[in-house]
Amino acid sequence: MAHYVYEFTEGGRDMADLLGGKGANLAEMTRMGLPVPPGFTVSTEACRAFLATGSEPDGLSREVFDHLTPLEEAAGRRLGQQDDPLLLSVRSGARFSMPGMMETILDIGLNDDSVLGLAKSAGNERFAWDSYRRLVQMFGSTVMGVDSTLFEDTMTRLKNTRGADDDLHLDANDLAGLVEAYKELIHQETGKDFPQLPAEQLQRAILAVFESGSGVAFTRDPATGAPGVYGDYLPHAQGEDVVAGIRNTVPLDGLKNLDPTSYAQLRGHLRRLEAHYRDLCDIEFTIERGKLWMLQTRVGKRTAEAAFIIASALVDEELITADESLARVGGDGLSRLMFPRFDGSKAGQALAHGIPASPGAAVGCAVFDSAEAVRRAAAGEKVILVRQETTPDDLPGMIAAQAVLTSRGGKTSHAAVVARGMGKVCVCGAEELVVNTHARCFTTDGTTVEEGTVLSVDGSEGAVYLGAAPLVDSSVMRYFETGERSAGLVDAVARAVRQADGVRRLGVRANADTPEDATRARRFGAEGIGLCRTEHMFLGARRQLVETMILARTDAERERALDRLLPLQRGDFVGILEAMDGLPVTIRLLDPPLHEFLPDRTELAVRLAAAEAHGNPPGAHDRELLDAVNRMHEENPMLGLRGVRLGLVAPGLVAMQVRAVAEAVVERKRAGGDPQAEIMVPLIDTVEELRLVREEVEQVLAEVSNASGIPVRCPVGTMIELPRAALTAGAIAREAQFFSFGTNDLTQTTWGFSRDDVEAAFFSAYLDKGIFTMSPFETIDREGVGRLVEIAVEEGRAAHPDLKIGVCGEHGGDPESVHFFHGAGLDYVSCSPFRVPVARLEAGRAALHGTADDDSK
Amino acid sequence: MAHYVYEFTEGGRDMADLLGGKGANLAEMTRMGLPVPPGFTVSTEACRAFLATGSEPDGLSREVFDHLTPLEEAAGRRLGQQDDPLLLSVRSGARFSMPGMMETILDIGLNDDSVLGLAKSAGNERFAWDSYRRLVQMFGSTVMGVDSTLFEDTMTRLKNTRGADDDLHLDANDLAGLVEAYKELIHQETGKDFPQLPAEQLQRAILAVFESGSGVAFTRDPATGAPGVYGDYLPHAQGEDVVAGIRNTVPLDGLKNLDPTSYAQLRGHLRRLEAHYRDLCDIEFTIERGKLWMLQTRVGKRTAEAAFIIASALVDEELITADESLARVGGDGLSRLMFPRFDGSKAGQALAHGIPASPGAAVGCAVFDSAEAVRRAAAGEKVILVRQETTPDDLPGMIAAQAVLTSRGGKTSHAAVVARGMGKVCVCGAEELVVNTHARCFTTDGTTVEEGTVLSVDGSEGAVYLGAAPLVDSSVMRYFETGERSAGLVDAVARAVRQADGVRRLGVRANADTPEDATRARRFGAEGIGLCRTEHMFLGARRQLVETMILARTDAERERALDRLLPLQRGDFVGILEAMDGLPVTIRLLDPPLHEFLPDRTELAVRLAAAEAHGNPPGAHDRELLDAVNRMHEENPMLGLRGVRLGLVAPGLVAMQVRAVAEAVVERKRAGGDPQAEIMVPLIDTVEELRLVREEVEQVLAEVSNASGIPVRCPVGTMIELPRAALTAGAIAREAQFFSFGTNDLTQTTWGFSRDDVEAAFFSAYLDKGIFTMSPFETIDREGVGRLVEIAVEEGRAAHPDLKIGVCGEHGGDPESVHFFHGAGLDYVSCSPFRVPVARLEAGRAALHGTADDDSK
Repeated sequence: MAHYVYEFTEGGRDMADLLGGKGANLAEMTRMGLPVPPGFTVSTEACRAFLATGSEPDGLSREVFDHLTPLEEAAGRRLGQQDDPLLLSVRSGARFSMPGMMETILDIGLNDDSVLGLAKSAGNERFAWDSYRRLVQMFGSTVMGVDSTLFEDTMTRLKNTRGADDDLHLDANDLAGLVEAYKELIHQETGKDFPQLPAEQLQRAILAVFESGSGVAFTRDPATGAPGVYGDYLPHAQGEDVVAGIRNTVPLDGLKNLDPTSYAQLRGHLRRLEAHYRDLCDIEFTIERGKLWMLQTRVGKRTAEAAFIIASALVDEELITADESLARVGGDGLSRLMFPRFDGSKAGQALAHGIPASPGAAVGCAVFDSAEAVRRAAAGEKVILVRQETTPDDLPGMIAAQAVLTSRGGKTSHAAVVARGMGKVCVCGAEELVVNTHARCFTTDGTTVEEGTVLSVDGSEGAVYLGAAPLVDSSVMRYFETGERSAGLVDAVARAVRQADGVRRLGVRANADTPEDATRARRFGAEGIGLCRTEHMFLGARRQLVETMILARTDAERERALDRLLPLQRGDFVGILEAMDGLPVTIRLLDPPLHEFLPDRTELAVRLAAAEAHGNPPGAHDRELLDAVNRMHEENPMLGLRGVRLGLVAPGLVAMQVRAVAEAVVERKRAGGDPQAEIMVPLIDTVEELRLVREEVEQVLAEVSNASGIPVRCPVGTMIELPRAALTAGAIAREAQFFSFGTNDLTQTTWGFSRDDVEAAFFSAYLDKGIFTMSPFETIDREGVGRLVEIAVEEGRAAHPDLKIGVCGEHGGDPESVHFFHGAGLDYVSCSPFRVPVARLEAGRAALHGTADDDSK
Repeated sequence: MAHYVYEFTEGGRDMADLLGGKGANLAEMTRMGLPVPPGFTVSTEACRAFLATGSEPDGLSREVFDHLTPLEEAAGRRLGQQDDPLLLSVRSGARFSMPGMMETILDIGLNDDSVLGLAKSAGNERFAWDSYRRLVQMFGSTVMGVDSTLFEDTMTRLKNTRGADDDLHLDANDLAGLVEAYKELIHQETGKDFPQLPAEQLQRAILAVFESGSGVAFTRDPATGAPGVYGDYLPHAQGEDVVAGIRNTVPLDGLKNLDPTSYAQLRGHLRRLEAHYRDLCDIEFTIERGKLWMLQTRVGKRTAEAAFIIASALVDEELITADESLARVGGDGLSRLMFPRFDGSKAGQALAHGIPASPGAAVGCAVFDSAEAVRRAAAGEKVILVRQETTPDDLPGMIAAQAVLTSRGGKTSHAAVVARGMGKVCVCGAEELVVNTHARCFTTDGTTVEEGTVLSVDGSEGAVYLGAAPLVDSSVMRYFETGERSAGLVDAVARAVRQADGVRRLGVRANADTPEDATRARRFGAEGIGLCRTEHMFLGARRQLVETMILARTDAERERALDRLLPLQRGDFVGILEAMDGLPVTIRLLDPPLHEFLPDRTELAVRLAAAEAHGNPPGAHDRELLDAVNRMHEENPMLGLRGVRLGLVAPGLVAMQVRAVAEAVVERKRAGGDPQAEIMVPLIDTVEELRLVREEVEQVLAEVSNASGIPVRCPVGTMIELPRAALTAGAIAREAQFFSFGTNDLTQTTWGFSRDDVEAAFFSAYLDKGIFTMSPFETIDREGVGRLVEIAVEEGRAAHPDLKIGVCGEHGGDPESVHFFHGAGLDYVSCSPFRVPVARLEAGRAALHGTADDDSK
């Protein structure tokens, strides 16, 4: 038969699976000899048995009452004893902390009789009735399912009647009346009475909840990481009220005056806990009749800023090693610290809080539908799109907006997923907001915000402010851009990244297409460019030349257009190679289909048809353009004539690009530089494609070498971005000097969906239904795409042991994915310049076998 | 040191790698004691050494001349001996037969002196000068690289001068003059002289060529399979002229009168060869001074018809077993026999021959460009598109045409690949045609064919006829459709397919979407339907309902549209289940994106814009339609919201389809039938998708069972058509009752190209460059797509040992792919009804470990 109930002396912190996090740590404190109030833990086994059958597990009641007896004996009071009742608290717990999902019922054992006994024995009638009031309220809402706002409304009405602006102004009579009102409310709402039998209260409470938390103190400031005890204390109350934030607390320092003995004890306990856990601890405590009781402890959550500062401080205090400190910080936190923020001291009180779904700070005027967002943005206004939740129909509005704010949905909601995909600020699930799309306004806490009102949205912290809050630059970003060190956060971040650099095996490069990006990437610590896209060099003013090349009717015409593109491309490469002098620069040959350089088919056809209908038949150029657009139209351009395919069928295109690279190398060498260009062929499916392009590349390199008298040698490698390339990597590796995984395209083809087309259409539905736990475009899908990466690394290296292997998809800057790439044995990751510090940090953490999770919230 | 030269006594037919096919079989005949002229074989090693270094392999000359000495001794004549020269032939060979790529140089040893000795010793001056003429011509073109047409032009001019319409009308003086003219020509073209030293002739010839072939006889008729010796004989000539077809031959029977002894010997040798090789043999022979010499033999190529008839006859003659006979026939041949053909007796002389690139027979008028093809087809005319070669720009014309005919390019040319992809008749590489696009005509052998002239094109045989040739139905097709047996071909085919049915392990199903297709498939031997596509059921008259469903503004509107679709779909399923009563019918839920059921975006936008410009603003319905089309527009619909994704986000769609299936099952059961419906979910990426849909399916099945009182149980399975599904097949198999590989989509995503978009754009370039040897959409790509299939089968079965696994892509009817699927352990293949007999045959051949190659040409 199962054993459901455990004494506090029976466990330890490593038993969280069985006892829940709180139970395990209560046992740990008991074993350390700290003063933990008498009690016992009902195990998660009991919970599972209950969930499996829907009814009370056999024998649980008997076990509970068996354990209750020694408790009653130790306390000298019994549950329900009328003159001096033993009061119990039932608190829910779980293996992992689940904020907002925990339930607590305090003061079990009070009823219409024992409340009078408590009043007498405590010598405080008000305290007794307030306790009873609290029991009825908590029991009513948690066990009997009455909407908790009804209790609050009842209390508010009473306070209004009494002119009281605080619970403390309600006296014992008021509270006794409130108990009656609450009991009445329960009867109305449920048709049943609040149970008077303490054993029934206990039994039903256990079934309804499994432990909870109360009161707060931290061993350091969890917001800033500043040392020193930090927390809140609320006299004449029980912990739940502190956590719930319902009533105004006093800072913990206030306790020093009220009860210096308990305060000193608490400080001592906190110091012991931090030394024991070797980390920031978060505790609940209560002081009953002058006696300090420790109710729970756990390693505390903290902000990203605090995580870095605390990790750095713990190293200085020699509680942890520098390597261990890397497990306490993380790339997600670091990336949030690199955005500008609102100046907290000047932003004022936040209007609302939600889930920080996509970081950054944005200011704009509130709009309530997509069309209005598009309209105002087109007129040059900055807008914040406010919706209950977004759907695919909101996409144009999201594109037009500076930020997206929703009142519903979590980190995987449509708004969150799509905004992150766009790199757009987003706060979602701000539940205090009541959004009224019809009236074009929202209300929160009595404030009504109309369309057009200026808001400030902090996607890193999840806060929304009224008006344009002043922005402050990120000191961390400034440090990476200028090297400007300062004490505190910047110093802590610099130490962590330097520590990671010392232990990481993965190299970190950047994706950069311009000299400016390359220069920035180098400042951010990039050890080369892993992806230099040439397609951007075909846009802008050069578009006309590309159009000429596409429309060319003769080889000579096409060659002339290519000849004119050559010096322009060469100039681009000279700048980039100069910025990255001495470091590798991987240049990818043109990847997208040519028709991307032509006008939109539908728009062009409509324009010409409308002109024709107005009696202006299109000219020769327009007709040719439309013909070309129609001829080159593809149903699925992602799966069409692009990358190496285009290079193999469009004469002169590869040669022109390679010549531009080679001549840029010559120019840089003549200038005394050390250019390290690498040529990367996109969209390879078979080794034969690579072999043919490589021959053409080698020939052009030889021609430029001969003509210039300066030897130009560039490694030639390939993207691995199609499943077939990964599956035949062994053969491809024999012709490749390096591999670079293009995990964006590889994800698209492995899953068979294109990011642009489906992210908005069904990703949020998939996340809601649990089909994804994370967008595979954000974090690499280990089972599918990751397996292809592993196959390609293993078989590529088997065929070519010196093969250099990197990744240049967006996953290269994602913390969890960096850990995967480390494990898969890659040589480097390449990501956008701003993610370089994140990748450096995570590559170090991965080398120490840490997980990608960090402690910052 | 390498050993390059082999005596004929040194080898045998299993040494083709070293000696080439011809050398190995000459050795085999020598060992059998057949009269083979003296000679030796220079091995492929020598060729490889030459190719590797570009110069004559060390010691080759010495070895050749060492072997020449005994030859000279046996013949009693020496190379270059002035009074009676030994003449040598150098013939190229290879491991495999390579028609058109073989080179031969006859009569080495003749020069300005020895030609006179030969004239004397042979007693025939004309013969001597003709032989010398031949040597100079062959040496000049093959060794010295002079364009062979220049020699032909010179001879033509001479014949014209002499008024001779045949070589035989040129006398010895004419030929001696021709030798001088040829030598002059060589000097003009190369600046060098024809070498007079026989040793130099031999050495240079060996380096230029490696053996060749001449003369022909077959042990049976290779066109019809009819028994009896069959071949051509050309007196006073050497074999090369017979093969080249330059001069008119006499049938082999003619030899019976000319030289009854040699004829009898030849008959005897042919019988021995057929018994020895146990197959049709193809030989070359020569008769020199009354002595029959066997020059080469090999297993002969034959037509598809002959292959079946010969295989059947050899079984009856007990030369081979019935199982062995399956190796002699094949699915490619069978499929060609299932098309109608032109009546050979009435089609007349073929105008030209080319490569049979895509089977079938078509009649239409010749057109010479794509635009004209489209124009005439739009006017209701049937057209044949004639081009030198096609390019992607010809695509509209190819779509409009009945057949495509080109003068250039092989089986993997653009025309061939695209026509096969379209199932359109194609003859390519008809080199006799001189196509003049500008003049809109082609000429061949003196005939000029103008635009508009009616042609008949036989894509199975590669023949083109003038006028509308009468068509005859395929007797093989009639047999499969009606069961009507007849002697000869039909009997031979029936026996082969029955034999295959007896040994095959793979089941064979058909892809069929209508009761008519299902009925036909069953007649063709299908053991069920492996793919019943429901999307076709949403088209035609029902399109309006689908449009209503898509445009619906309320749930109620959408449900009403679905409710009206339900009985229509149910009716479809009843018919199909009735046609396949007792056999499994796998019904795939709706796969394509919904916008495929809406109008083309560009067309609609242009129409509305033009109407608006003419003062007719679009009505509400048109505006809504355009909005919907724009909203649902996807850049890459193949990678968009379709398949299971659509089923999971479009409420009611899956339930309606499943209800239609379930109610059809009930209706069939009530009628006393045995319906075996299976439900297949398309485009699965993760097991979670399948689990959710399966729950919905099971719920609807339960509802219909309860409502009707008739239990409806349908297995629920999934397509494996995305790389991720294959890579996570172990997990998916736990929720699937069957797998069916959708190798069309799997090929598209594994390679990252869409068939529609790229086949025309770059496949022929890829085939030309050797990147593909076969379109991966025709024959499964074993290394890439095949590897995913193997992974999914292995891991799917490991997780779910009873998992039923089939394939329903077009590869299911491709011979080589059927062998792959057999080897991969699938349970069945499913293909279009017409391919069912092919799949049955190939599944049997695969079970006997044969390859997919067969002997028919």
